[in-house]
Amino acid sequence: MQQDSDLSNLIKILSKLPSLGSRSAKRIALHLIKDKEAAMSPLINVLQLVKNNIKNCKICHNLDVSEVCSICSNAKRENSIICVVEEISDLWAMEKAAIFNGKYHVLGGSLCAMSGRRPEDLNINSLISRIKNSAVQEVIIATNPTIEGQTTAYYLLELLKEFDIKISKLANGIPIGAELDYLDEGTLDIALKSRSKFN
Amino acid sequence: MQQDSDLSNLIKILSKLPSLGSRSAKRIALHLIKDKEAAMSPLINVLQLVKNNIKNCKICHNLDVSEVCSICSNAKRENSIICVVEEISDLWAMEKAAIFNGKYHVLGGSLCAMSGRRPEDLNINSLISRIKNSAVQEVIIATNPTIEGQTTAYYLLELLKEFDIKISKLANGIPIGAELDYLDEGTLDIALKSRSKFN
Repeated sequence: MQQDSDLSNLIKILSKLPSLGSRSAKRIALHLIKDKEAAMSPLINVLQLVKNNIKNCKICHNLDVSEVCSICSNAKRENSIICVVEEISDLWAMEKAAIFNGKYHVLGGSLCAMSGRRPEDLNINSLISRIKNSAVQEVIIATNPTIEGQTTAYYLLELLKEFDIKISKLANGIPIGAELDYLDEGTLDIALKSRSKFN
Repeated sequence: MQQDSDLSNLIKILSKLPSLGSRSAKRIALHLIKDKEAAMSPLINVLQLVKNNIKNCKICHNLDVSEVCSICSNAKRENSIICVVEEISDLWAMEKAAIFNGKYHVLGGSLCAMSGRRPEDLNINSLISRIKNSAVQEVIIATNPTIEGQTTAYYLLELLKEFDIKISKLANGIPIGAELDYLDEGTLDIALKSRSKFN
């Protein structure tokens, strides 16, 4: 293997992908080589297609083949409410649940001093423009309940205060199907504090 | 995402690779799209290179850029001893340990009634030819200590009996660094039965 730089290069590149390590990268490389026509060629083709065709929506930064994504261009969805998420995968999770009929805005990450991600690295200016230039009535800040996500949420809250819009956040509490015994203290604390009348 | 067939196709293809599921496939797809130049292009290029250049060695079925791999063509390695392994990853593991100076033979799998892998699906005929046509003195059957690996080992043993060569197998026992408490009964049993004089 050492002699063969293309192959070790493939394994190296694969091993740096999220969720993969050197062992799984080796397994994938061997799997692809074992069946070049049925496994490797389709992967190369679809990567090439995605590379050439998929772009970020110029409004919400979702991914699509067109400049304006199918969610932003869908006239049946409410324009007045924007759900702000960190990543496209969060948007996908919301869409999979089919619980929201407004529009989205993908920040492209969260503020993080450790990784040096500053406000200008996120899609915040385009969010402000959308609020200024369209009839937005509510912004749901749906960043993750992590330190970075919450920092980002408070930063956005400060920025959005000047606009005459409702700013909301997703409820925190016990997830459906969870067992109290397995939940962290922070979740139990917030669930207790946010308890509601049982009727 | 649903609207976009290339992207969902990429995720589908990635999710079928070994070690990956739909969640990790999504993460990888988004990671690649996020940085097309630095992440996706090198992957496409190296896949293309590997697809075009890497082939199986016509002697031992290892992978290399040449028809005869660097191990088979290495004059410093002993021709008289062949280590038979199931997969190329097993060959890599042996080479990484740098403990063996003979040649290899990669079977390309193991016999398995459940998956319908028969002797003719493995590189067994080419092994027999090698033994017939070169001065092989010893064959080490290094298939895995699984039911399939052992079935394959016994099948090979029967086949190779007719040749005047030594046939050996790797030792079974307690792996170095293991704790007895965590080992299975089969390993403890074989380690006890194969115990040797302490001197």
